Amino acid sequence: MSYNLLKGKRGIIFGALDEKSIAWKVAMRAKEEGAEFVLTNAPLAMRMGEINKLAEQCNAQIIPADATSVEDLENLFTQAQEILGGKIDFVLHSIGMSPNIRKGKSYGDLNYEWFLKTLDISALSFHKVMHVAEKQDAMSEWGSIVALSYIAAQRVFPDYTDMSQAKAVLESIARNYGYRLGRSKKIRVNTISQSPTKTTAGTGVGGFDAFFDYADKMSPLGNAPADACADYCVTLFSDLTRYVTMQNLMHDGGFSTMGISEDIVEMISK
Amino acid sequence: MSYNLLKGKRGIIFGALDEKSIAWKVAMRAKEEGAEFVLTNAPLAMRMGEINKLAEQCNAQIIPADATSVEDLENLFTQAQEILGGKIDFVLHSIGMSPNIRKGKSYGDLNYEWFLKTLDISALSFHKVMHVAEKQDAMSEWGSIVALSYIAAQRVFPDYTDMSQAKAVLESIARNYGYRLGRSKKIRVNTISQSPTKTTAGTGVGGFDAFFDYADKMSPLGNAPADACADYCVTLFSDLTRYVTMQNLMHDGGFSTMGISEDIVEMISK
Amino acid sequence: MSYNLLKGKRGIIFGALDEKSIAWKVAMRAKEEGAEFVLTNAPLAMRMGEINKLAEQCNAQIIPADATSVEDLENLFTQAQEILGGKIDFVLHSIGMSPNIRKGKSYGDLNYEWFLKTLDISALSFHKVMHVAEKQDAMSEWGSIVALSYIAAQRVFPDYTDMSQAKAVLESIARNYGYRLGRSKKIRVNTISQSPTKTTAGTGVGGFDAFFDYADKMSPLGNAPADACADYCVTLFSDLTRYVTMQNLMHDGGFSTMGISEDIVEMISK
Amino acid sequence: MSYNLLKGKRGIIFGALDEKSIAWKVAMRAKEEGAEFVLTNAPLAMRMGEINKLAEQCNAQIIPADATSVEDLENLFTQAQEILGGKIDFVLHSIGMSPNIRKGKSYGDLNYEWFLKTLDISALSFHKVMHVAEKQDAMSEWGSIVALSYIAAQRVFPDYTDMSQAKAVLESIARNYGYRLGRSKKIRVNTISQSPTKTTAGTGVGGFDAFFDYADKMSPLGNAPADACADYCVTLFSDLTRYVTMQNLMHDGGFSTMGISEDIVEMISK
Repeated sequence: MSYNLLKGKRGIIFGALDEKSIAWKVAMRAKEEGAEFVLTNAPLAMRMGEINKLAEQCNAQIIPADATSVEDLENLFTQAQEILGGKIDFVLHSIGMSPNIRKGKSYGDLNYEWFLKTLDISALSFHKVMHVAEKQDAMSEWGSIVALSYIAAQRVFPDYTDMSQAKAVLESIARNYGYRLGRSKKIRVNTISQSPTKTTAGTGVGGFDAFFDYADKMSPLGNAPADACADYCVTLFSDLTRYVTMQNLMHDGGFSTMGISEDIVEMISK
Repeated sequence: MSYNLLKGKRGIIFGALDEKSIAWKVAMRAKEEGAEFVLTNAPLAMRMGEINKLAEQCNAQIIPADATSVEDLENLFTQAQEILGGKIDFVLHSIGMSPNIRKGKSYGDLNYEWFLKTLDISALSFHKVMHVAEKQDAMSEWGSIVALSYIAAQRVFPDYTDMSQAKAVLESIARNYGYRLGRSKKIRVNTISQSPTKTTAGTGVGGFDAFFDYADKMSPLGNAPADACADYCVTLFSDLTRYVTMQNLMHDGGFSTMGISEDIVEMISK
Repeated sequence: MSYNLLKGKRGIIFGALDEKSIAWKVAMRAKEEGAEFVLTNAPLAMRMGEINKLAEQCNAQIIPADATSVEDLENLFTQAQEILGGKIDFVLHSIGMSPNIRKGKSYGDLNYEWFLKTLDISALSFHKVMHVAEKQDAMSEWGSIVALSYIAAQRVFPDYTDMSQAKAVLESIARNYGYRLGRSKKIRVNTISQSPTKTTAGTGVGGFDAFFDYADKMSPLGNAPADACADYCVTLFSDLTRYVTMQNLMHDGGFSTMGISEDIVEMISK
Repeated sequence: MSYNLLKGKRGIIFGALDEKSIAWKVAMRAKEEGAEFVLTNAPLAMRMGEINKLAEQCNAQIIPADATSVEDLENLFTQAQEILGGKIDFVLHSIGMSPNIRKGKSYGDLNYEWFLKTLDISALSFHKVMHVAEKQDAMSEWGSIVALSYIAAQRVFPDYTDMSQAKAVLESIARNYGYRLGRSKKIRVNTISQSPTKTTAGTGVGGFDAFFDYADKMSPLGNAPADACADYCVTLFSDLTRYVTMQNLMHDGGFSTMGISEDIVEMISK
């Protein structure tokens, strides 16, 4: 179903890897809602993924960019404005990678070079995106910028290791750059704290299945699926949420405000 | 502009008093978005306000109900379903009244009977609404219930006196009944924490102008206007936010995450 | 062990019922630390409990008072100052009772008269205590007031029903009256959000054992015992925490910031 | 005054630069309370500061260590245990430095190499401290670790720039490593979120005077002084707070829960 919520809007979508990616689903929904956008991902991620398929389906161009490189981002924003024919109305940042998680390092045994890399890729990239957008004056007034986060920024999920800190930084950047862009250009910046999602990235975290099930049983609506997250992103990119900014918005079926659920009580009473 | 976001949806809207009311604006926007609904308010409030004018504009019927009376609410939900021809998809609770504020009682000098009345009218009424909806099985699956709150639930605004506690209760009820309705019927329940708004109710709070201006200067986007709040309500009633539940959602131009703004620094540096 | 942390301090301790009560243990520890205080409880609670035994052990007088009665509280503060020979330095509010819980009412089926009673007894009583203290100018400068709360104020514990709202009100009152007393007399007001505790009151909540065990397995230090809570109260009454005010302080072995623990994963993986 | 709260306890105190440092005052108070400890700081900071004077007054040894160097920290923990004759009971982490702030870079113009340096020095150092303590099994059971933070971790203070992210990481590390050390050794880990303080480091932040005054007028007790912070640290190192862990504890005279104060209203009404 389409409501034309994003008709005439221009966007940049980071992080679509394959059909399971939230960014992929956001792209599909944004297209349905009438948006035009460019897709971007790191050169390496592009080789592994199937972004070309998505680009065809959305009639969108791909501009490769390493989101840790200010130079690449400058090129991305310049090209995106040329291709789309004007300033950018919305940006989705869906980027996260931890070398420590990839290599199975526990929280007590992190490699500190990799820790900084996790922060640079997963969080500072968000600052760089906004820095470049601001320098180029590339965003429209009342534009909307969203990054995907996770509740490990607030609470402890032992297997999430240094990505917990990355999400804490991501959310802090959303608040701080949100103030800056809000004041100068009425642009809003928010993070969505999404339920654990069975994406290619998500399932790479150790013990994923256990906390997926746990969260599902704790949440009265169950875990929020990726499709619903895409719907939610559409509302945040639309003109109907103009005064929501610098927030971390829980999209989690109720998980974040649960203390204990009857399903969990049953589970542990066995 | 209309997106048909609420096409085919049936609602109940509490609390439209006059054109400045947020509930009034929500009704207008819901109508534009294709919803059918009934309007309701306390008999006394109806006499003071201009709800008939709104009813005409929205082609909506009015069912008077004292929201502290379970009996009145039972009648309301029964009639609303008859009039609208089916179960209810969305409810807006925009009810707040403090006899202590009306009589200018300071926080150190509250009348405790009135304090309980403030809680009963402004917060327990929300529980009663959901209680009746549940008993009558009056809500559709994936329905959406929203109540309007204020940040005095979390932080101290001296002139807001016992309404601070009322909003704390309101938000707590949203979480707790939200769990219950989420689990049984996939219904979501949220509160919107709205900027200070120049409604007839809002401006009754002492020192309103001072904290309106303060909040406006603190918020990078300025205070969120009532119209924007109506837009935001529409997104929460739509099918695009199905997994957002048990949340208190800040609609405040960024106020809630500000520590200090450059405008405030300027103001106090003079 | 004693450090003389409360030497020369005068206090009022509400809510000691029997040896399992947190208030009981606070009284014992306060005595050890050199404080003088009066004990108080509702006449009914006094008949059921063993407060006389405690009074003997602490060499303390008992002044019966219904904490919902401003008159009783006026008498209490007047007498306490006479007995102790000066203004009051610390107050412990450990009062909670829900007729709905006592009668086994579920959250969807609350008696609303009782709901207001729950709020009046468990939360408004805290406002009344501070109101009377302020009117009589009964507290010393830099005095400390503490009330016992529970995390159900923030998150959903289905069996806790309307006590969740009572704790939300209690914490809100702490903030709001804390501002008032801080400004005028440098008095601090805080709540301690304590782990589920096997007191006579606590174990009356349905499903208590299940969430006690769950919280214990979730918390890296396990649930905080009542003795440790008494120790913590002592620090908050002492002169070493003078600038901590209007806070809800988690005393919970880490529970509140946990997302999932390895023990819970093991439990549900079976 | 002394209570002997830390009698027999051994500690490591990071970050005492000069008499205005909070760490300096913590050392003085810890000494009064009966603790033995070593002092440590970065070689560069030591040259600039007057730590030798403090060492004399406390009869403490100094072990220079760059807190970003795991090797230096290993040496520190090894030596500290030798010097003090046993395992460590408490640690104070009071370390923060942002090259971006030093060079006057605005948030929209950060140097990203420096940004990572800010995070490494001010936050990852805290992880490294606990990592080394864990590897060496250098902490006693029921030990206590505290780091100093600031509310810019939660809210926007424009001049605090990338230190806001550093404090967000610091607090996240406290939660995550706190889980780990709590589970294995009953060690608690907390951060204290201190009022703006006129230390040599604090006053280096742009616009410091404006937000110092603003916070002072907003807080009912005024800003918490460094001496009071030292007192609070003593309670957290003592045996009276054993079940408080993974918390960010506001030590701010009430600032964090204020919405608006009468003093601020007056200020802006002029």
